Amino acid sequence: MAEDLTNAALPAEHPLRTGMRDAPLLRAAAGRPGPRPVWFMRQAGRSLPEYRRIREGVPMLRACFDADLVAEITLQPVRRHGVDAAILFSDIVVPLRAVGIDLDIEPGVGPVVAEPVRTARDIERIAALDLASVAAVEQGVRNVVASSPVPLIGFAGAPFTLASYLIEGGPSRNHDRTKALMHAEPELWHELASRLAAISERFLRMQVLAGASAIQLFDSWAGALSLADYRRFVLPHSAAVFASLTDLGVPRIHFGVGTGELLGAMAEPPVEVVGVDYRVGLPDAALRVGPDRALQGNLDPALLGAGDQVLRAEVERIVAEGDALPGHIFNLGHGVLPQTDPDVLTRVVQWVHELRP
Amino acid sequence: MAEDLTNAALPAEHPLRTGMRDAPLLRAAAGRPGPRPVWFMRQAGRSLPEYRRIREGVPMLRACFDADLVAEITLQPVRRHGVDAAILFSDIVVPLRAVGIDLDIEPGVGPVVAEPVRTARDIERIAALDLASVAAVEQGVRNVVASSPVPLIGFAGAPFTLASYLIEGGPSRNHDRTKALMHAEPELWHELASRLAAISERFLRMQVLAGASAIQLFDSWAGALSLADYRRFVLPHSAAVFASLTDLGVPRIHFGVGTGELLGAMAEPPVEVVGVDYRVGLPDAALRVGPDRALQGNLDPALLGAGDQVLRAEVERIVAEGDALPGHIFNLGHGVLPQTDPDVLTRVVQWVHELRP
Repeated sequence: MAEDLTNAALPAEHPLRTGMRDAPLLRAAAGRPGPRPVWFMRQAGRSLPEYRRIREGVPMLRACFDADLVAEITLQPVRRHGVDAAILFSDIVVPLRAVGIDLDIEPGVGPVVAEPVRTARDIERIAALDLASVAAVEQGVRNVVASSPVPLIGFAGAPFTLASYLIEGGPSRNHDRTKALMHAEPELWHELASRLAAISERFLRMQVLAGASAIQLFDSWAGALSLADYRRFVLPHSAAVFASLTDLGVPRIHFGVGTGELLGAMAEPPVEVVGVDYRVGLPDAALRVGPDRALQGNLDPALLGAGDQVLRAEVERIVAEGDALPGHIFNLGHGVLPQTDPDVLTRVVQWVHELRP
Repeated sequence: MAEDLTNAALPAEHPLRTGMRDAPLLRAAAGRPGPRPVWFMRQAGRSLPEYRRIREGVPMLRACFDADLVAEITLQPVRRHGVDAAILFSDIVVPLRAVGIDLDIEPGVGPVVAEPVRTARDIERIAALDLASVAAVEQGVRNVVASSPVPLIGFAGAPFTLASYLIEGGPSRNHDRTKALMHAEPELWHELASRLAAISERFLRMQVLAGASAIQLFDSWAGALSLADYRRFVLPHSAAVFASLTDLGVPRIHFGVGTGELLGAMAEPPVEVVGVDYRVGLPDAALRVGPDRALQGNLDPALLGAGDQVLRAEVERIVAEGDALPGHIFNLGHGVLPQTDPDVLTRVVQWVHELRP
C-alpha cells in the first residue's frame, strides 16, 4: 500500500466535526475553560472483571486484532466509570506485529520478540505499515466511535520505547543494548528510530481518520535516558511523529514515566498536552513544560490501594494544583495496576467531577 | 545481645588511624584535594570470571555468611582493576536474614521473602540485630581490612528499600503495597522503618568498628517515591541511620537510583557524599545537593558496552564535570551489569587515573 495520507483532512462525519469538539477532554487539551476531564491509562484492562471475562482464553494480540473485542473492551470503562475519554484497547507492539515482526505478548512478562533487532540487516527488514494489516484495528476504532459518548484517544508507542523492545528482545530494566547501539552505531539507531516513527505516524493517522479525537504517544521507557541522550537520539524521532499529525488538528499528548528531567524537552515538539508521572508535582511540571501546554496526570496509581481518606486528599491536591494550569486532564501518573479495585476508580471519577471548578 | 555501641570509638588499629585517612577515597569524600578515586558499584560480582568460578554451586546468601568467601570476593576487583576502594561483598538483605526473616536471594530474581511483612504482628516479630548472627560478616570485614591496599566501604540497605522487599515479598516495579501501607497505616509504617533503621545502624557500625573506612546506604528504590512521600515517610529514618554513625567519623555516602527529584532531600541528613545516577548531570546535581557535599557517580553502566570511543568521551566528560565539585568519587550511576566485559572496567580505572588533575 502506498496511499498518501499526508494531506488528508478529517472526514465530514468525524466526531470533531459533529459536536465532540466541546467535550471536556478536548476543551482542556486546548486550554479552553470547562469541566475538568478524567480518564485513566490502562482503564480498559485487567482491573475490570468484565474485561477478564471477555479475555478468557483469548491471547492479548488476538484480542487486539478483533474489531468487536477492541470496541467492547474500549467501551467497558466508559460505561462503568463514566470517564471523559475512551482510549483504544490495543498495545504499542500491535503495529510492529502488523509489519511482520515475530513477537507476542506473554502474560506477566510483556512483549517478547522472537528475533531481536540489532544489525543493519535486521533493521532493513522492518517494513512500512500497510494499513490493510491493521484493518481490524481501524474497524475497532470505527465501532467505538459509532457508540462512544466521549472522545476516543488513539495511541502508539514512541520510537525509543518500541526500539527498546525490539533491540532487547523484551522488557528491560537497563536498556543496555539499546543504549549501546545508539552510541556505538548512531546511523543504525537513527535508521531504526526513523522506521519506527513512520510506523507510529501511520498507525496514529489511521486512528484519527477513523474517528479518534486525540492521540497519545507512549514513551514509557524514556525516563531511562539522560537528557543529553534523549535530546540527541530520541526527541527528533518523537517530534517527527507529532509534526506529521499537525494537519489533522487533534490534540497530541506526550507521555513517559520517570521523565522529570526530560519534561522540558518533551514539550518541545508540537504537542498540546504533556503527561506527568507522580514523581513531579504539577506546579513544578508546569515550570519545566512552559506556560502554554496542558498537563495530564498525576495520581500515583499505587495510592488507589491506600484507602478512601488518603485517596480523596490526594485527588483534591491534584485538582487544586490543576486549577492553576492552562489546562488539566486528570489521570494517573502511570497505568492502572491489575489488582486495583474498579469501584475505587469509579469513585475517583465521581470526586473529580464533583470537584469541578 | 545488648552491648551499647553508641559511644564506641574507632579502635587504635583501625585503618583510619593507621594511615588510610589520606587515601584518595577519603580525601575526596572530605573535600580535600588529591587524586580522583574510582570504584564501581557491584564491582565484586558476576562480571568477573574469578567471581563466577568461586561462586559455582554456592548460593548467594551462603557466600555472604562465609568470611573467607566474603574477603576473597571483596578483594577480587581490587586486585584486577586497581580501584581505589573495596566494597564489602554482601547484600542488603543479609542483616534481615540475620534477624531471622525467612528470605532467600533467587538467581535472576533477587530477594524473595517467604512471609511478606504487612501487619502489626509481622512487624513486631522483627527483632533487633544480634551481632553474633553476623559474626561471619564481621570476620569477613576483618579479613579484607587485613590485606586490602585501599579503604573498605561498608554498606547497608536504607529503611525504605528494605521495607519494600519485606512488604512486597520481593522485587517490585510499583511498590504499591508499600505505598499503600505508608499512607493508610502510617504508624505501622514508621514502626517498621524504625526497626529496619536500627538494624542497618547496627550492621553499619559493626562494619566500621571491624575496619571499614566509609559506609554507603543504598536506597535503591527511593526514586519510586514522590518528594512529598519521601520527605514524610522515608527521609527521617534514613537520616537516623546516618546520624547514629556521626561519632565514628567515617564518610557516609547516600545513594539511590532515579532520585533526581530527591537529591536535595537526600543531602539533608549528615552525609559527606551523595550518589548521583546517570539521569542528572553532575553540575545540576551539585546545585540540588548544595555546595558542601562531594558527589559520587555518574557513568551510565549501559555505556560500558558501547565501545571505547564512546566510553572514553563519557569518562572525560564526567571527570571534567567532577573537577568543578568540592569532591568527586568516580563511579557508575548504578551497579555493574553482569554481562559487562571486565577489561572495560579496568580501562575505565586507568583512564580516570590518567586524567587525574
